[in-house]
Amino acid sequence: MSSRRALGIDLGGTHIKVVLLQNGRVVEKRSRLTSAEEGVESVLDRLVELGRAFGEFASVGVAVPGLVDQDGVGLLFPNLPPEWSGVSIRRLLEQRFDQPVALLNDGHAFTLAEARMGAARGATNAVGVVCGTGVGGGLVLGGRLWEGIDGRAGEIGHQTVVADGTLCGCGNRGCLETLASGPAIARSAGTATFDHALAAARRGDSMALEAIASAGRYLGIAIANAVLLLTPSRVIVGGGVAEAGDLLLDPLGEELKRRAGAVGPLDRIRVVRAELGPLAGGVGAALHGADRAIDAVVPG
Amino acid sequence: MSSRRALGIDLGGTHIKVVLLQNGRVVEKRSRLTSAEEGVESVLDRLVELGRAFGEFASVGVAVPGLVDQDGVGLLFPNLPPEWSGVSIRRLLEQRFDQPVALLNDGHAFTLAEARMGAARGATNAVGVVCGTGVGGGLVLGGRLWEGIDGRAGEIGHQTVVADGTLCGCGNRGCLETLASGPAIARSAGTATFDHALAAARRGDSMALEAIASAGRYLGIAIANAVLLLTPSRVIVGGGVAEAGDLLLDPLGEELKRRAGAVGPLDRIRVVRAELGPLAGGVGAALHGADRAIDAVVPG
Repeated sequence: MSSRRALGIDLGGTHIKVVLLQNGRVVEKRSRLTSAEEGVESVLDRLVELGRAFGEFASVGVAVPGLVDQDGVGLLFPNLPPEWSGVSIRRLLEQRFDQPVALLNDGHAFTLAEARMGAARGATNAVGVVCGTGVGGGLVLGGRLWEGIDGRAGEIGHQTVVADGTLCGCGNRGCLETLASGPAIARSAGTATFDHALAAARRGDSMALEAIASAGRYLGIAIANAVLLLTPSRVIVGGGVAEAGDLLLDPLGEELKRRAGAVGPLDRIRVVRAELGPLAGGVGAALHGADRAIDAVVPG
Repeated sequence: MSSRRALGIDLGGTHIKVVLLQNGRVVEKRSRLTSAEEGVESVLDRLVELGRAFGEFASVGVAVPGLVDQDGVGLLFPNLPPEWSGVSIRRLLEQRFDQPVALLNDGHAFTLAEARMGAARGATNAVGVVCGTGVGGGLVLGGRLWEGIDGRAGEIGHQTVVADGTLCGCGNRGCLETLASGPAIARSAGTATFDHALAAARRGDSMALEAIASAGRYLGIAIANAVLLLTPSRVIVGGGVAEAGDLLLDPLGEELKRRAGAVGPLDRIRVVRAELGPLAGGVGAALHGADRAIDAVVPG
């Protein structure tokens, strides 16, 4: 673990969370409202101010809630105003910080954080699934974040699970996100929110229980597909929907076994619940920023 | 490219094919019937005799038609007699060759060969799909074969594409293999074999055309899922079913665009048809054997 100070920022739709990582530990953290309605420049100013309050740091990583391309330009942010698409986020941040900034998707940050310091620590290869308002994820392969050709890898939420299913925001039908996100579960449970559905399920409401179990089974299908492709040693499930615990994870595990039990080495693959909670995004961003800073000094 | 002589052997259900690779070229090749009915020991004796006829070589790789574990023990061979399961194939081969033998799945060998010397040469990251009697595949990530935790990665044929679909030989329902293999296409086309279905399609038979197009669309779904997860730069489609050419690849490409077009960087990902034909297995085995021999000298 590096003794260098690594700053990690999680830019979310509602909160900006900042952590300072040193010697493999979170030594300081802060949080502030995003207030996205105030505009891109204002949000970025606030974010940089929040980071700078920590003094000096050797590297900066910023996790963003959506897709960015390899040049750090925003492509698609479901939970930020549309003006964020097309913005050179990395350039604007590097101008303000006056040092290199590593940008990454929040699902990637989650996975890297949990694989190095959370529920999958010690695992070289892991698949992460963040199940909340949307369904995101990421891959850690050979100990490093797997970015694919342009930083967009790990899109488990848009895996087709039901070929002729419901239309997804992405234009495809039957994406995992339409079947296992918080809003999808609330819809099936007949409740206003996922939290209501979970409360109802805990009271024994059969419709809510089935809505959560069904989401677990769909997650199990998508995870089985990812496991058969990659055979990682850990699958990490996090996000608000994971609060359902075994109500979700038991049907998930059964479906995974049914789908991949004969062909995949399931005896060596464990599905674990995320441990880092709201810190994961910032921690993953800090780890990725530090990785990139090392790459810049010692070319791979 | 190494000037060292690399032996590659493709042990198939019907033929054993051997190639000798030097300076990145196939300098010699041979083939013989497998005659699997003569028993494991006899087949391995024949395979080694065939390889030894090429003289000395620096490394040996052997591709096998099924799953082997990380110790080189056979797990599942759909096209070999059941006695092959549980056999320590690598140990038996190393005793006979009196040198290390790298064992790999034939779908992995196909992908490595096409990624380094075939249709995807120059690509660092590629997904391979071999569509024939079964549906196999492999992954090349960062220029190397991706084996996962125990050599079983790349199982695209057992991706669930239709959750409540037909029962597959693996015990799961709706695997890609049940929807896009040669026998599956023949069944939908109402013909005895895939070759008959292809001939009928070329004569304009609408049922055969639709059977092939439908297989293409199912391949498109599974490939979209793999592409969204990994964002490789190339997807290579090979095997007997790929002989259908655009009858298969056009619907495949349309489905891929529909499924992954909005979220995945499809402008930077190309689907290509395999080029190496029956040589792919042996070439991939030789390349993997050479990689492993280098690893043994220069630990990663």
